[in-house]
Amino acid sequence: MKDFSFDTIAAVSTPRGKGGVALIRISGSAAAEVADRIFVPASGGTLSQKRPRSAVFGRIFTPDGGLCIDEGLAVLFRAPASFTGEDTVEICCHGGALVTRRVLEACLGAGARHAEAGEFTRRAFASGKIGLDEAEALGLLLDAGTDAQLRLSRSGMAGTLGKRCAELRDEATALLTDIYARVDFPEEDLGSISAEETRARIGTLVDKTAALAATYRTGRAVAEGIPAVICGRTNAGKSSLYNLLVGEDEAIVTDIAGTTRDVLSTTVSFGDVTLRLFDTAGIREDSADEVEAIGIRRAIEKIDGAELIFYVIDATRAPDGDDIALAERLLAHGGQVVAVLNKVDSTPCAEAEELFSRFGLRARLSALTGEGKDALEALVSSLFIDGELDFSADAIVMGARQYDAIARAADALAAAADTIDSGFPPDLAGVCLEDAAAALGELDGRGDTVRTDLIDGIFSKFCVGK
Amino acid sequence: MKDFSFDTIAAVSTPRGKGGVALIRISGSAAAEVADRIFVPASGGTLSQKRPRSAVFGRIFTPDGGLCIDEGLAVLFRAPASFTGEDTVEICCHGGALVTRRVLEACLGAGARHAEAGEFTRRAFASGKIGLDEAEALGLLLDAGTDAQLRLSRSGMAGTLGKRCAELRDEATALLTDIYARVDFPEEDLGSISAEETRARIGTLVDKTAALAATYRTGRAVAEGIPAVICGRTNAGKSSLYNLLVGEDEAIVTDIAGTTRDVLSTTVSFGDVTLRLFDTAGIREDSADEVEAIGIRRAIEKIDGAELIFYVIDATRAPDGDDIALAERLLAHGGQVVAVLNKVDSTPCAEAEELFSRFGLRARLSALTGEGKDALEALVSSLFIDGELDFSADAIVMGARQYDAIARAADALAAAADTIDSGFPPDLAGVCLEDAAAALGELDGRGDTVRTDLIDGIFSKFCVGK
Repeated sequence: MKDFSFDTIAAVSTPRGKGGVALIRISGSAAAEVADRIFVPASGGTLSQKRPRSAVFGRIFTPDGGLCIDEGLAVLFRAPASFTGEDTVEICCHGGALVTRRVLEACLGAGARHAEAGEFTRRAFASGKIGLDEAEALGLLLDAGTDAQLRLSRSGMAGTLGKRCAELRDEATALLTDIYARVDFPEEDLGSISAEETRARIGTLVDKTAALAATYRTGRAVAEGIPAVICGRTNAGKSSLYNLLVGEDEAIVTDIAGTTRDVLSTTVSFGDVTLRLFDTAGIREDSADEVEAIGIRRAIEKIDGAELIFYVIDATRAPDGDDIALAERLLAHGGQVVAVLNKVDSTPCAEAEELFSRFGLRARLSALTGEGKDALEALVSSLFIDGELDFSADAIVMGARQYDAIARAADALAAAADTIDSGFPPDLAGVCLEDAAAALGELDGRGDTVRTDLIDGIFSKFCVGK
Repeated sequence: MKDFSFDTIAAVSTPRGKGGVALIRISGSAAAEVADRIFVPASGGTLSQKRPRSAVFGRIFTPDGGLCIDEGLAVLFRAPASFTGEDTVEICCHGGALVTRRVLEACLGAGARHAEAGEFTRRAFASGKIGLDEAEALGLLLDAGTDAQLRLSRSGMAGTLGKRCAELRDEATALLTDIYARVDFPEEDLGSISAEETRARIGTLVDKTAALAATYRTGRAVAEGIPAVICGRTNAGKSSLYNLLVGEDEAIVTDIAGTTRDVLSTTVSFGDVTLRLFDTAGIREDSADEVEAIGIRRAIEKIDGAELIFYVIDATRAPDGDDIALAERLLAHGGQVVAVLNKVDSTPCAEAEELFSRFGLRARLSALTGEGKDALEALVSSLFIDGELDFSADAIVMGARQYDAIARAADALAAAADTIDSGFPPDLAGVCLEDAAAALGELDGRGDTVRTDLIDGIFSKFCVGK
């Protein structure tokens, strides 16, 4: 954790492109010196002589002092009262693409190194300003495409999850202390901690850890999203449902384009659930039989990989052989299959109703009018979201790395419980408890056991300038 | 000029997209109140109670206070010490696309109106902080794709041009005062201003105005760019010259795409000259005769509209009939035609040399090795750039609107000179001098004569948030 170099870095922290203003951030022990080499306050003197945290107007020059590049505001933050915990200067210049680049180049020419992706945040972590869990929540905030993601990231950035893990780690450590004190200092006559008490305290830890791990169902559905697919017979209303989910929603995040005409997935929010919606709706546009066959094969591949399937049944038509075959496949599917009886505003067909009734998860819908959409949303939410959780206040596991650490803690605690249940004395459960505490410590990374490659992985996902 | 509404406006001032941070600007008399409704300083109290120009850390809430959207820094600038001259708050939040939008929405919900394109700058103009010439220079800075444009915009933003026009206007006004004082108050016995003195002072103004107008040759070449085209026979080396101009240059500004495969123009810097290079190089790729014929017709259209033509002659091949026909067309062209004898590193052909020698502007080049490029660059610069001008210090006319105002001043001054030369008394030249002063006053817009549609035109070119 201490293998970071602390030279002075600089980068453009605002998005690329043309805007009114751009912000260039410099961080490191020489941040003020770098700024002083290129920034001349209009009021005279140097930025490092000004009051920290005050916006100082001045001109920005090339490091050789020859050319005035721009004018703007600079703010000096003195360590440790900055985002990174280091001396930091933020220069706000005009937001033209070239002028921004030239100001950054001036910073680099004045002694700063170009920051790597996520390096400012990594320094905030290294200096103990934030935990890994908070850095991950910040990543979610920056990427957030849905309001549920925003709320979840706010809770994570407040350190709610890290604090909960620290509490659990403290409980495990306290138990360890009680066990080992009695082993290490028998002459103190502390009295042996009973197997019963040990088992009870481990049991509490097991329950609490399990409860925390269970929040990942919700955290994952919000933060990472659920791979979902819409399938069904031609003209059943797949496209209408797709448009209902995508079209009305202003929170469309990404259109991952494969080839030009082939949109593979769209991320939408459906209630609090983030759906990574794979579009099989477009496939049936091509009416030639052969193409249709390829389309169906591709749809089936998508279905097999999905965790949530909307199976659209046309309420007005009797199912044909293809319908039955698809229904059988879906009834055997391991994921959540929601049968959607579409066109409920039209004259119903008994056979369609009968097919619909074979599915456990059912929603009646008029994709065209939107009737039944709220019920469908509530159904999907109930599948993936724990309604008891308050996104903005509760500790919620929101990423695979976090879940992995907590799951390992849970495994270690289970092993500790087994040890006691098998009649071994409490101190033999100690190793398991140590493992559990270490795993819990990985979550915020403030322990000593976090692997560098794991940290690298977290920060490399950030953009340069963050 | 006084028809602006001064309600409180807000916009995202940083570029669209995802970045580490984004900046939201609020300006107007209620800026502090709007910020106080959504921003809660971590140190307690409200932003409007804090010291202006200090970076205050806090949390950003929805206006109803219910939901924390983000945390960030806010800086309050009190009028008139701000960019717009009004109370201004800048909020620096995290740079995710959705979070930025939600913070902006919070500002709008708290009473701000979404700013129109260029409205912050327009307010800076309306409050007398900057002149129209400075606003136009700022526009050039934001759009700058070449370093020459950056230098020119810096000079313009420093108000160099506006000051020069104000000097000329003051001279015209002083002359008017001298003329009218003697007419209006003959009893004061100020002595009649002689026709000779009047004519001499008008003559000085004519010369100075003409000199200023002449800088537009340079300003236009740098700021607006010169429509240029490369033409010549197949395999003469048009593509190589194009790549030489475009490929090595990191300052490529825009690729204006027509259809997918049809790049119409590329803006490059060639020395200090900005070239709007229309590509006819790609046309000859299609080898079918008919397509070739269309290509040639299109190339000829481009040639007719260009101000600078690079006519590439293959030094190693004898010109054919098409060559001669093209050469004749170019020799009759009104623009600057530079004959480029390419492949000078290979065995030369006397007939090609002979054709080359018929042109007044000539450059020998090996587009492949780059030999001769510097001389070509110097030649092009000499055609469009006044080498005596110092971009960063001298007053340079950099836009058509500015040139139009100065040209009208020059016309009015010429008419004033004519009046005297025709034997009329000095006071009859007064109307012309008034026209000249008014035209000069339009340049920085600080006079009362600037038309609103003209001002609208200037600021509508800015992006929202500037």
